[in-house]
Parts: sequence; C-alpha cells; structure tokens
Amino acid sequence: MVDDTGARRIHRALLSVSDKDGLEQMASALIQLDVELISTGGTRGFLMDRGYPVTDISTVTGNPEAFDGRMKTISFTLESSILFNRDLHAEEAALLGIAPIDLVICNFYPFHEISDEKSMKDLTERIDIGGPTMVRAAAKNAEYVAVIVDPADYPEIVEELEANGGALHRDTRFQLMRKAFRLTADYDGLIATTLDRRAGDPSLRFSFDHGRRLRYGENNHQKASFYRVSGEASSLHDLVCLHGKELSFNNILDIHSAIDAVRRLKRHGCSVIKHSNPCGLAESPDQRRSLELAWAGDPVSAFGSIIALNDTVGMDTVSFLSLDAEDKRSRKFIEVLIAPAFDTDAIEYLNQHKSLRIITFDPADFMPRHDARFVFNGLLFQDTDECMYREFTEATDFKNDIDEDLIRFGLLAVRNLKSNAIAIVRRMDRDSFQLLGMGCGQPNRLVAIRLALDKAVENLQKETASSNSIRRPAGDALDSAILISDAFLPFPDNVDICAEYGIRTIIQPGGSIRDKAVIKRCVEHGITMIFTGIRHFRH
Amino acid sequence: MVDDTGARRIHRALLSVSDKDGLEQMASALIQLDVELISTGGTRGFLMDRGYPVTDISTVTGNPEAFDGRMKTISFTLESSILFNRDLHAEEAALLGIAPIDLVICNFYPFHEISDEKSMKDLTERIDIGGPTMVRAAAKNAEYVAVIVDPADYPEIVEELEANGGALHRDTRFQLMRKAFRLTADYDGLIATTLDRRAGDPSLRFSFDHGRRLRYGENNHQKASFYRVSGEASSLHDLVCLHGKELSFNNILDIHSAIDAVRRLKRHGCSVIKHSNPCGLAESPDQRRSLELAWAGDPVSAFGSIIALNDTVGMDTVSFLSLDAEDKRSRKFIEVLIAPAFDTDAIEYLNQHKSLRIITFDPADFMPRHDARFVFNGLLFQDTDECMYREFTEATDFKNDIDEDLIRFGLLAVRNLKSNAIAIVRRMDRDSFQLLGMGCGQPNRLVAIRLALDKAVENLQKETASSNSIRRPAGDALDSAILISDAFLPFPDNVDICAEYGIRTIIQPGGSIRDKAVIKRCVEHGITMIFTGIRHFRH
Repeated sequence: MVDDTGARRIHRALLSVSDKDGLEQMASALIQLDVELISTGGTRGFLMDRGYPVTDISTVTGNPEAFDGRMKTISFTLESSILFNRDLHAEEAALLGIAPIDLVICNFYPFHEISDEKSMKDLTERIDIGGPTMVRAAAKNAEYVAVIVDPADYPEIVEELEANGGALHRDTRFQLMRKAFRLTADYDGLIATTLDRRAGDPSLRFSFDHGRRLRYGENNHQKASFYRVSGEASSLHDLVCLHGKELSFNNILDIHSAIDAVRRLKRHGCSVIKHSNPCGLAESPDQRRSLELAWAGDPVSAFGSIIALNDTVGMDTVSFLSLDAEDKRSRKFIEVLIAPAFDTDAIEYLNQHKSLRIITFDPADFMPRHDARFVFNGLLFQDTDECMYREFTEATDFKNDIDEDLIRFGLLAVRNLKSNAIAIVRRMDRDSFQLLGMGCGQPNRLVAIRLALDKAVENLQKETASSNSIRRPAGDALDSAILISDAFLPFPDNVDICAEYGIRTIIQPGGSIRDKAVIKRCVEHGITMIFTGIRHFRH
Repeated sequence: MVDDTGARRIHRALLSVSDKDGLEQMASALIQLDVELISTGGTRGFLMDRGYPVTDISTVTGNPEAFDGRMKTISFTLESSILFNRDLHAEEAALLGIAPIDLVICNFYPFHEISDEKSMKDLTERIDIGGPTMVRAAAKNAEYVAVIVDPADYPEIVEELEANGGALHRDTRFQLMRKAFRLTADYDGLIATTLDRRAGDPSLRFSFDHGRRLRYGENNHQKASFYRVSGEASSLHDLVCLHGKELSFNNILDIHSAIDAVRRLKRHGCSVIKHSNPCGLAESPDQRRSLELAWAGDPVSAFGSIIALNDTVGMDTVSFLSLDAEDKRSRKFIEVLIAPAFDTDAIEYLNQHKSLRIITFDPADFMPRHDARFVFNGLLFQDTDECMYREFTEATDFKNDIDEDLIRFGLLAVRNLKSNAIAIVRRMDRDSFQLLGMGCGQPNRLVAIRLALDKAVENLQKETASSNSIRRPAGDALDSAILISDAFLPFPDNVDICAEYGIRTIIQPGGSIRDKAVIKRCVEHGITMIFTGIRHFRH
C-alpha cells in the first residue's frame, strides 16, 4: 500500500469547506476513485444536491451537531481517525472502533471579509474552531494523511490521484502540510490583529516565503536572504533574470529604486541609479533619446549603474551603450538593465556583455502602498509618498507662464532622491524632459543646491564643448531649467546661490517660518517661485 | 452572577501545561476559591504530588487517553463545555450532560526549543493539537470563559480573582483572548517556518504589537504608525520621552541612527544626526568636550539636529547649548537629545526649551542583529554590519606608525554614513577623537571626497580664525587627520585630490582591480594607505 515514494491510497475523505469553488469536480474525482466522502452540513448538502453520496459527519463522530453549529466535527472519534499513527496504533484504533480518514479537505470562513462594522459578537461567532483542529491534526499526521486547504490545489491533486490509482506521494503530503500550517498561522494571525485593532492596541503581522540565500548582504561579511511577501499577486521577488550573474543585495535595492523612479513617467522613461539615488532621469517620446538624456545627467556615475526603462526595449536604444565598440573606452558598462520586455535583437546585442544582468519586471505591476522601516526591534510603517503636489501657487506673483509638465517631471525626480535633495530639470525638444543635475543626501540644503548646480553647469559645458558652437557661460543656459527642492528653502541665502548660477524658476513646497524673506529675495533676483504644498522627504 | 463589568465567577478550571512555572501557586489559589480543577496526565500528577485534588480529564471527556497521548483532551464533551453559549445553550448543554468549564490554563511544548538536529518525526510528534484546540475554543468564547496561556499572568489573575470572590472581569477575559490568539498564531507560525526551512524553502514571520499612530510619516500626506517587535526584551519603541512634544516618524529614524552611531564609542561618545547621517561624531574622556567636538564637525547642520550621548548627561555638558543665552543667536537649538540618563540639574536646564525632546534610551541595550529592507512586496534580510575591519595592512609600505585607535574611530564614523561615504577624522588632545568632515550619499566617490575635504578645511579655518593665531593654510592642519573611505577608491584621481588638500593617510577596504595604480599614486604623493579588508556600504 506504500511504495518508495511513500504513496498512500486515499480511502476516506473528510470535506468541510466554506469556499465551494471546484468542490464538485474534486468530489466527483474522489467518487470515481472509490473514495468514501464524509461531510458536514453545508458541504454535504451542496454535494448531495448534485447527486454525490456523502456520509453524514455525525455517523462518524457519534455526536449530534450542537450549539447552533459550534460543535460539528470535534470529537474523540473524528480527530482520532485523522491523528492515529497507522503503523503503531492500528490495533488500538481497531479496538476503539476508529476507522482511518486519509484526506481532509477544509477551508475556513474568510475572516478578512469581516468588516470593521461587525459587532464583537458577530466577529467571534465567525472564528472557526473545528476547521483548524482537523486541519492541524491532518497536517501533523502528514506521514499518513493529506490535507488540502486551497481549492487552487484541487486540479493538481486530482491529477496525481488519477495517475496513481487514488494515492498521493509523501512529498505531496508534506507540501500540503506546510501549506496547512501557513494557513492556520495566517488565520489566527488575522484574528489576533483584528482583535488588537478593535482593542485600540494595534498589531501587525507579516509573512514572507520563498526565501533565497544571497551571496551576501550590503557587504560581504553580512549574511543575507531575499523573501517574497506571502500571498501578494506581484512582487519584486518575481523579477526574471534573462541574462547575467546572480543579483546582489545592493542590486535588488537599486532595482527597486530604479523601477520606482520610472513607474510614473510616461513613455519612454529612463532612470539611472547609483546607491539608490537617480543620478539620471529622463522622459521622451523616443526611447533611445530617453536613455541618452538620462545618461547625460551624470555620465561618470552612469558607469556601473542600474538602469530601468518603462517599455519594451529595442535595438536602437541598447546600441547607445556601444558594447561592441572597437575603442573599449567608449563602451558603456552598466550593472543591470531592467525593462518590461526586450526585443530579440536587443537581447542578442546585450548578451555579448557577460557581466550585464538583464532583468524583466513591469513597472506597471509596481504599486507599493506601504513602506516600512525597521528600527531597533521596532517598525515604522507608512503609506508610500504618492501625492506629488497640492497645487502650483506662484509665491512671487510675476504671473509668468509656468511649464507644469516640467514641474511634474521634476517632482518625480526629487521625490526619488534622498534628503536633503535638489533636482534641476529642463525640457528638451518638444516633449522630452531631463534631470540635468541633482544634489542629495546632504545634512545642509545649501550643499545640495550647490551640488546640483555644479553638476548642471558641468553637463551644459560638456554639451557646449561637444556641439562646437561658440562657448558661452553655462550659467546662461540654466535660465530655461528649473530647480526643485524636496523641502522648503530655510533661508534667503538658498535663493542667492540659485541666482548666482542663473536659475530663473524655483519650485518648493513652502511652509517655512521664513517663507516671506525667501519670497522677497526671489523677487529681488527676479526669480519665479512656485509653492507645491507637498514635501518629499526620503531617507 | 454577572455584574456591570461582566465579571464571571470561575467554578471549574481545566489545566494542561508544559511549562509548570507558578502552577502550584495558581492551583492553590483556585482551590482556596473553591474552583474544581480538571487536568491531564503530567499536570495532574504534578498537582496531586503536591497534595491538590484534581479531577482526571477522562472522567470529563468520557474517553481514554489514547494513541500514546495523541488524544487526551479532544472530545465532544470537553470542547462543548468550553464552547457553548451560556445564555443561549444552557438547556441544550444540560440535556447533553455538559457542565461548563470557565477557565482554561494551557501552554504548549516550547516548539522553538526543537533543535534542527531533530528528525522530522520527532518534530511533528511535538506539534500540539489538543492544546491549541482548547485555547482557541476558550478564546472564542471569551464572553464566558477565561484562558491563560502565559504563566507570567498568574499573579495578576490571582489578585483579581481574590479581590472579586473568584470572578474575572470581561475586560480581563478579552485581554486574555487577544493574548491567546497571538500565541496560537505565533505557535503555528513557528511550525510553518520550521517546516519551510527544513524543506529548503525558507520563510520568515514577524509580528509587531503596541502600534501607535504617528501624526504622519516622512511627510505629512503619509499616514504612519510605530510598532514594537513582539516578544523582544528591548526595543527602540520603549524609549522614554522625558520632555517635549510627540516624536515624529523622521525623529524616530534619526534616533535610531544617533544611537547606532554612539553605541560602540567609548565614554563619552556623541553623535549629531541630520537626515540619518552623522554630520558630527566625537569621543572624549570628557563629556562636554565630546559634545563640543561633535558639534564643531558641522556647526551649521547641527542646528535642528538629533544628538545622542552614550552616558548620563550632566549640567556641564548641556550648558554648552546656551539655551538661556541673552543673545538668542548663540542658543543652540536642537530637535532631540538622547542619553541613557540625565542629571536632575541638566533636565531642569533643558526643560526651559519647550520644543526640545529629551529622550532616555540606553545604547547598551541597542544590539540589533538583523537589518531588513522592504522592497516592493519583498524583503531583504541581512545581518547588521558589525565587523569593522579584518586587519590593518599598510599597502604603501612606508612603515609609518599608524594610530589604530583613530582608525577604529574613523571606521565607526564612515560605517554610519550613507554610501558613497568619506570620513575625515583626527585625534585631539590625548584621547579625544573628532569627525572633522564627511561626504555622504553621493553617486560619485570623488564628490564625496571633495565634500569631506571642503568641510574639514572650513572647520579648520574657523578654528584658526577663532583662536586668533596667525592664519595658515588650513590644508597644513589636515596632515594630522586621516581620510577613510567606506569602499575602495576606484581610480588614482581619488588620491590626487587628497594630496592636493594635504591628507597624509588614507584608509580604505581595498579590493579594486586598480588597487596597484591607486597604491602607486599614494607612493608618489607620499601618502600612507592602509587596507582594512572590510567594506561598509550603507544605503
């Protein structure tokens, strides 16, 4: 009856489900395989109505259904028939008149559907006691008993049963066992957090699965693993690595940042990430142009960066990297390239660069609603920063036209930079936007501003030099760019340095006690200042 | 029998425990209150040996203990006596001969003590089925039944029982209910993760409690809460706010960084944090000196910062902040001050500054072993970065004496800065160390180096100016400082800029393919270069 794979024939099955999806097909397959079905009230009615013979649970338990259904399955006989050791206790079972149950199919009332309006009484009434008991008993005895808690597993189980004359392999039973304990843990976890919330003493529970060991963490003396949040439809854990060596801890962090930076850009968006900050960001109707503009934001840092694009990547785009250039110095080496998909010729082209990781992940699936930060044995849990601005209010009252699309692009850039952060952005051509310079991660806003301005000037000078046009002070060109600050400018000297470099428009949330002095200084310099009302700190 | 507080008299109690701590006192108190005790094998033996009368469980269940103890409690009678609704089902219970059980005292075999060497068979044998069933049944019926799962709760429960003639309030029963479901969730969670690990498919589960709503998250359009990791002895969540308004999300993040930056410093250590980076860090035998030196690392950014000290704070130290200075401009306003404790006069002095938050938390309790980062529906989990260096190897072979204590201090500074990070540190007096300049959060290491050098020079110039000595180029003074890089220097030009500013010693992990060229450049400039072998990336 038991072969090398530990296959065991199912003779009797107990069915008690809230979710009746797929139940009929499952029951029908079991009947075909000569399995006796035992069932509780609702489940039994459902199957009898459809013409399947089902033994009433009370003939097994020897007890009536009692107390408005609070007692249906729990009994010495039923739990014994699931729980006894088939090798050690067969004789004792026979003496006690206990016949084995080999399969338990059970799922619980969906507790997460209980709305917060329900009374405490309604809520506790919904807590299943008998179901978890039989599931846990069957899972404990997985050496002999199978337990199915997810209707999605029926087809595969039926297939295995049919292929094996009504038997299931040991491996299958042990997989089902793990799933069963995950379910009972999650179920009681949900009950606990619901009760805690009601009691005004909130708790949180997370479960993560499919852990895989990474080579190391942020540094090679730190052990690390990467897990998937259980039960979510989409996860960064599901990214597909088409080519290249294993992703590192830091690669994954940067991939998150890279996708987060392009996900709200229109076609075609491109981000260039170094140490989780975008040092390049662009949007253009033309994909190659988008990559070119993003790269040009910091061509030195772009080497060895992580780059994300938000649409299928074509050959024309990737050829920008010049991976096959005769002159090796003109080859643009990057660590990771991420996109929803790649054209075949683009993949072939990229494959020639052995160390490049090519990743597919669709930014459209990337919709994080919460953000959590571990501190020492504590957790800071928050909504993600999705609201970009309240409204655009000109504080300086010059009534100049403002380029709202450019501001929106600039806000997306500054939102993804670590604070204190400054982004300088400009509109190119008709509908292309570029991050021209950024400063980030600074304790002092003035330093961030200077970093952004210096980088912008450097980029403009390179541009002027390479176009062979008459050299002009780079500052001149900054008058068409706008400077965006993630938080309010605290002092008027912040404006002075912008003026010195030729900036004509500053965007900031506003809200400082010195706003008046800052606005006054803008007016003196003829700089337009727009308030957005929304800060974008990120740490 | 039921008063306004929903108090209910306990008449019959069921006891079945693995952990027998405090059991005798509990049982004795129940007997004194005329409560009938019912118990299973081991628990009953324990109590009978000590002279307490205990009813055998099988007289209640009507069933024998069976299958080597797999079946002890589970039965229609026992679970009914816990589970029936005392108001609705009293008659039905009487007809069925079911007498109520009003209190369940139960704890499970400590599953976390199961070593990884145990066989799968031993492991599953330890999975308790009857215990969780009775605990869950009692918790569901908390309106009528109390359930105690933690021996630590016995004294308080006994006190309440004795004060109320053997009755427990509804509030107490509902608190016990929440604790019971947290236990069953954690218990099955532990089983699930243990099984998943054995199956080579690792999972992780976290639970957090005592959630409290924060005013907002990183920005005021983001909702946020702060939770405590369940069951840990020490947590940042337990910090005590002695004075000042509520802590914000960003305050808590910065407090974590501030404590993390001082916890490995000797007496007296001080960190000054802005946007989670230390812009000031110092160590000195004198506490005030430590604060002064840390402040001087970036006196502009120190305004509005979060400061941590690693020992009891005295009056002499806090008077440095000049909070009562006539000239308001010389008052040093900070957001948060953290220390293990404060002298009374120091507290009184600080209290005059209304908006200052004064926090006690002992860095000695702060020992995070793991660090986790949420990415989109995924979790990166790693050991914390604790190993500071492998060994100090002089790459340049000048055989100069090196100041190992200063290097160790510098490594602690650079470890806490966001990458790319550079720290310039110096030894003051005999045993004081100071972070003189830092660059952090940069995509380009060269920029980080320049930021650190510029800040160091600026600080030295201020020092020279204020000491009224003959002005000398600040660069000169940098020859006694050392520059530390969190990761390897990728190109020789990184060395050139250090030389230009007068740096004589560079510390870095090493490990670049261009190490040879970098070392050669150091030799050309007469700069000593030390390799540590350990990188300190932080994002």
